[in-house]
Amino acid sequence: MFNPKTETQRIVSFIQNYFQEQKLGGVVIGISGGKDSAVVAALFAKAIGSDNIIGVTLPCHSKDEDREDAILISQKYEFPLINLDLTSVFDSLEEEAKKIEDFVESEDSSINAKPRLRMTALYYLAQMYSKKNQKTYIVAGTGNQCEEYVGYFTKGGDSVSDIKVLSDLTVEEVIKIGEELEVPPKVLYKTPSDGLSGKSDEDKLGVTYEDIAKVIQNQPVDEEIRNKIELLHKKTHHKFETPTYRKESVF
Amino acid sequence: MFNPKTETQRIVSFIQNYFQEQKLGGVVIGISGGKDSAVVAALFAKAIGSDNIIGVTLPCHSKDEDREDAILISQKYEFPLINLDLTSVFDSLEEEAKKIEDFVESEDSSINAKPRLRMTALYYLAQMYSKKNQKTYIVAGTGNQCEEYVGYFTKGGDSVSDIKVLSDLTVEEVIKIGEELEVPPKVLYKTPSDGLSGKSDEDKLGVTYEDIAKVIQNQPVDEEIRNKIELLHKKTHHKFETPTYRKESVF
Repeated sequence: MFNPKTETQRIVSFIQNYFQEQKLGGVVIGISGGKDSAVVAALFAKAIGSDNIIGVTLPCHSKDEDREDAILISQKYEFPLINLDLTSVFDSLEEEAKKIEDFVESEDSSINAKPRLRMTALYYLAQMYSKKNQKTYIVAGTGNQCEEYVGYFTKGGDSVSDIKVLSDLTVEEVIKIGEELEVPPKVLYKTPSDGLSGKSDEDKLGVTYEDIAKVIQNQPVDEEIRNKIELLHKKTHHKFETPTYRKESVF
Repeated sequence: MFNPKTETQRIVSFIQNYFQEQKLGGVVIGISGGKDSAVVAALFAKAIGSDNIIGVTLPCHSKDEDREDAILISQKYEFPLINLDLTSVFDSLEEEAKKIEDFVESEDSSINAKPRLRMTALYYLAQMYSKKNQKTYIVAGTGNQCEEYVGYFTKGGDSVSDIKVLSDLTVEEVIKIGEELEVPPKVLYKTPSDGLSGKSDEDKLGVTYEDIAKVIQNQPVDEEIRNKIELLHKKTHHKFETPTYRKESVF
């Protein structure tokens, strides 16, 4: 049985042990205005203290509304929130791409470049704050188990981080941890969305997080939905393990 | 015993099988002007044909000389070589970072942002060419076993790719494959360098690739050097496996 209080304490201990063992000083967290990054921030605030957190908003042609919810979270857990606007960085990339003779507009190219630029910026800042404050900052991941199971993330983007604390928790479990840590309801119960495509995650995926959790936990689900989820899982396997030639491999 | 002819053929089959199995259409390769990307391009030219390769140079405040060697490789293996200049993209990122009150100059931030922007651009182009040519392009990795053993790569940068063909080959073995495929000597025997820091790889690492290969292959090496290499290996382990909280974990 999932016990939010115990689980919260265990995650906090996991963070504390890792920081102590690796002699780490702080964490950089991209604060999207959604529940996952809010829960991650709340967990780190409890584990290492607000003074050792740098929250970052990374707008990229995006809505001001998300920034407002990020501010709400930074105020609740009392950590500084900086802003690095990626709009001009993204526009420079597109401008350079347009100089290529073969250029064609591609929505896939544009949508996936954004999380990759965000990752690049988070690591830039982690190294900058490491120098400024003379202690090592790492980048926290914010992906949860349901998203990861169906490969709903950008390879080389939001999937790259130095510590993952939600990867073994379903969306429902993340929300329970969030309730335990008093994450503001406006953020905690917000419909999950990438903030880029204008669609909700569940619309994009064509399945619900609840059903994904059922598949993960081996509970009964409609057969067609189960197949859809298992297909997404299988099709995105390459995002986790890059096919690699080995001298001894047989193929 | 390492047989370059057999090994070349086996890698070619590995690529062909993977492309067939996954119904892939082409590959995007960042051509640095160094031996690794040249050997990767030569292997793909043999496996899937030059017409299905897009070579890319990604200068970022870098030397024209590297571009010349990339052109040499694209001419030798007859694939198109496009150029996407990341200088303005990188400069936009630094400009935005300078707007942050806490900004400090950090060499680590700058040097590691470049491979991350390169990865972002390679994936941007892979998705663009997939749309343009109506077949799926993937991104080829170019890291070799010696580099990977000591973690000499940027997490979220050059380590992110969709297929890795040199990861199980030492530098010496890569060179032998290159000889087999007639990679131009000027490129094949060039002193390895990241082209970013102005230093050679071996200067930066403080150990030679030959000694790293000996450690990997369990051959005799000076004890102090072995310890240095094993320490690099251990210290960079987190680049391969992100520490992740698990419900059942004990710590």
